[in-house]
Amino acid sequence: MGRSLAAAFLKAGHPTTVWNRSPAKAAPLVAAGAHLAPSVAAAVAASPLTVVCVTDYEAVRELLGGDGVVLDGTTLVNLTSGDSAEARETARWAGRRGARYLDGAVMAVPPVIGTAEAVILHSGPEADFAAHRTTLEALGTVTHLGADHGLASLYDVAGLAMMWSVLNAWLQGTAMLRTAGVDAVTYAPFARQIAAGVAEWLPGYAEQIDSGSYPAEVSALETDARAMTHLIEESEALGVNAELPRLFKAMADRAIAAGHGKEQYPVLIEEFSRPDPA
Amino acid sequence: MGRSLAAAFLKAGHPTTVWNRSPAKAAPLVAAGAHLAPSVAAAVAASPLTVVCVTDYEAVRELLGGDGVVLDGTTLVNLTSGDSAEARETARWAGRRGARYLDGAVMAVPPVIGTAEAVILHSGPEADFAAHRTTLEALGTVTHLGADHGLASLYDVAGLAMMWSVLNAWLQGTAMLRTAGVDAVTYAPFARQIAAGVAEWLPGYAEQIDSGSYPAEVSALETDARAMTHLIEESEALGVNAELPRLFKAMADRAIAAGHGKEQYPVLIEEFSRPDPA
Repeated sequence: MGRSLAAAFLKAGHPTTVWNRSPAKAAPLVAAGAHLAPSVAAAVAASPLTVVCVTDYEAVRELLGGDGVVLDGTTLVNLTSGDSAEARETARWAGRRGARYLDGAVMAVPPVIGTAEAVILHSGPEADFAAHRTTLEALGTVTHLGADHGLASLYDVAGLAMMWSVLNAWLQGTAMLRTAGVDAVTYAPFARQIAAGVAEWLPGYAEQIDSGSYPAEVSALETDARAMTHLIEESEALGVNAELPRLFKAMADRAIAAGHGKEQYPVLIEEFSRPDPA
Repeated sequence: MGRSLAAAFLKAGHPTTVWNRSPAKAAPLVAAGAHLAPSVAAAVAASPLTVVCVTDYEAVRELLGGDGVVLDGTTLVNLTSGDSAEARETARWAGRRGARYLDGAVMAVPPVIGTAEAVILHSGPEADFAAHRTTLEALGTVTHLGADHGLASLYDVAGLAMMWSVLNAWLQGTAMLRTAGVDAVTYAPFARQIAAGVAEWLPGYAEQIDSGSYPAEVSALETDARAMTHLIEESEALGVNAELPRLFKAMADRAIAAGHGKEQYPVLIEEFSRPDPA
C-alpha cells in the first residue's frame, strides 16, 4: 500500500521522499523520481506533509517516536488500519509532539490508489485537511468526515460491514437459486437491483432513528419477522445455510418481545445499539 | 393486498370481477366499477384470468377446489405468499384441474400496487405469462423469471434477505457512528453509497461462482477475515451489538479452515450452500 501511495504522489508530480525499513523495496519508486531518505527523521524533515501507512498504530508510534524525529510543525496523515480509540490516542500523542494530525482510512486496494475509485476517508481538524486536500487528492477520492479523529476508522469498518452484508445476502440468494438450477450470473442483476433499491431508503429511514419514532409507514416489524420465518424454512428445505436468516429473526424477535412489533424496521437500532445478549 | 390489486385493474380500465369471503369489504371496489361475484365459482367463470391473493397456499386450494369451481381452461395467477415447494405443488394441482398456472410474488406493499414501483415476479410457462402480460402490467413492474413455478418465491425471499442485510448493516454502522455523536441522517448517505457500490460488483463476482474458480483479484478472504476481527473488536469496545460481525467471521473462518483463505470472497458460496454446522 505504501508503494502505491508514493507512486500516486509521484505520478501527480509531487516531490516525494520515501522511507521503508527495507530500502531495496523503494528502488522502483526511486527510479520513478522519489528521493530515498536514509532515516525516518530525514523523511519527516523533507516535507511539510508526512503520509504514513504501516502494519499497526503501535508501529506508527515506534517509527515516529524514534531518535531524532522532529514532529513539531509537521502534518501527519496516518493511513494505517486501526480502531477509533487508537486513532484518537495517536492524535493526542502527535499533538504532544507539536504535530498536526489527520487520521485516515483507505477503502481501496493498492491497484486503484491514484484513481477516483480509491475512496480515502480523513478525520481530524478541518483546517489541516483543507491545507493538504489538493495534495491528498493525488491518492484518490478524499473526504473529510469531521474533527473527531476516530471517525475515519469508524466509517471504514461500518462500510466494510455493509460490504460483507451485501455480499453475504447475495451469496444466500445465489445458494438458494442454484438449487433451482439458476446460475449465479442470472441471479446477480436481481440482487444488484434490490441492494441498490434498498440503499435509497436509508436516508429516509435514518430520520426515524434521529427522531426516535418508528411509525410503520411501509410495514411493521412483525410482518418482516413472519417473512423471515419463510426465509428460514425455505433455506432449510433447500438444504442451504440458514444462519444469517436465523440471526435476522432472533434480533427482530427480541425487538418484538420488547414491544416494537407494530413499529418499523429501523426500531431495531435499539438491538444494534446494545451488547450481545448473554 | 387483494383490494389494491383489484383497484389497480379497475384504474387501468379492465373489466374486473371480485370475490371476498366478507362481501362488505368489496363495497369500495364495487363503487369503483367492479362486479361482485356471489361465489368463487362465479368469480372464476367471469374472466379468462383469475388473480388470487389470500393467506396461504392451503387457502388457495381450499377456495379454488370448492363446489362448482371450474378451473378447466382458465389461467390462475397466484400472488399468495408461500415457498417454492408449495408453488410447484399448486402448479401440479391446478394442472390436474385443467388450469394454466403462474405463480407470483409481490415485492411491494399495497399502497404502491398499480405503480411502476410495485415489482411483481412471475414464474411458470412463458406462453401463459406472455398471453396476460399486458393485463398484469396494470399491477406494477412485472417480470417473468422462468418456467419453474418455484422461482417467484425463491427470488422473493432472496430479495428479502438482501433487503434485511442492507438494513442490518446500515443499523450496525449507525449504532457505531452514534457512539461518536454522528446522527443517523449524517451517516446514511455513506451507507447508501457503499451498498450501491458493492451491488455493482455482484455480476462480476457471480462469474467466479459459475466458473467455480476464485482467484483473489481484488483481495483474499483471509484479508477480509482480519478486517472482520477489527469490526468485532470495535463493536465490542463501543458497547454495540457484534452478533452480525461475529457471524460474518465464523463463516469466513470455516472457509479458511477448509483451505480457501487465499481465494476471493465469493468462495464463501460453499459455506452458504450447505446446512448450518451442527
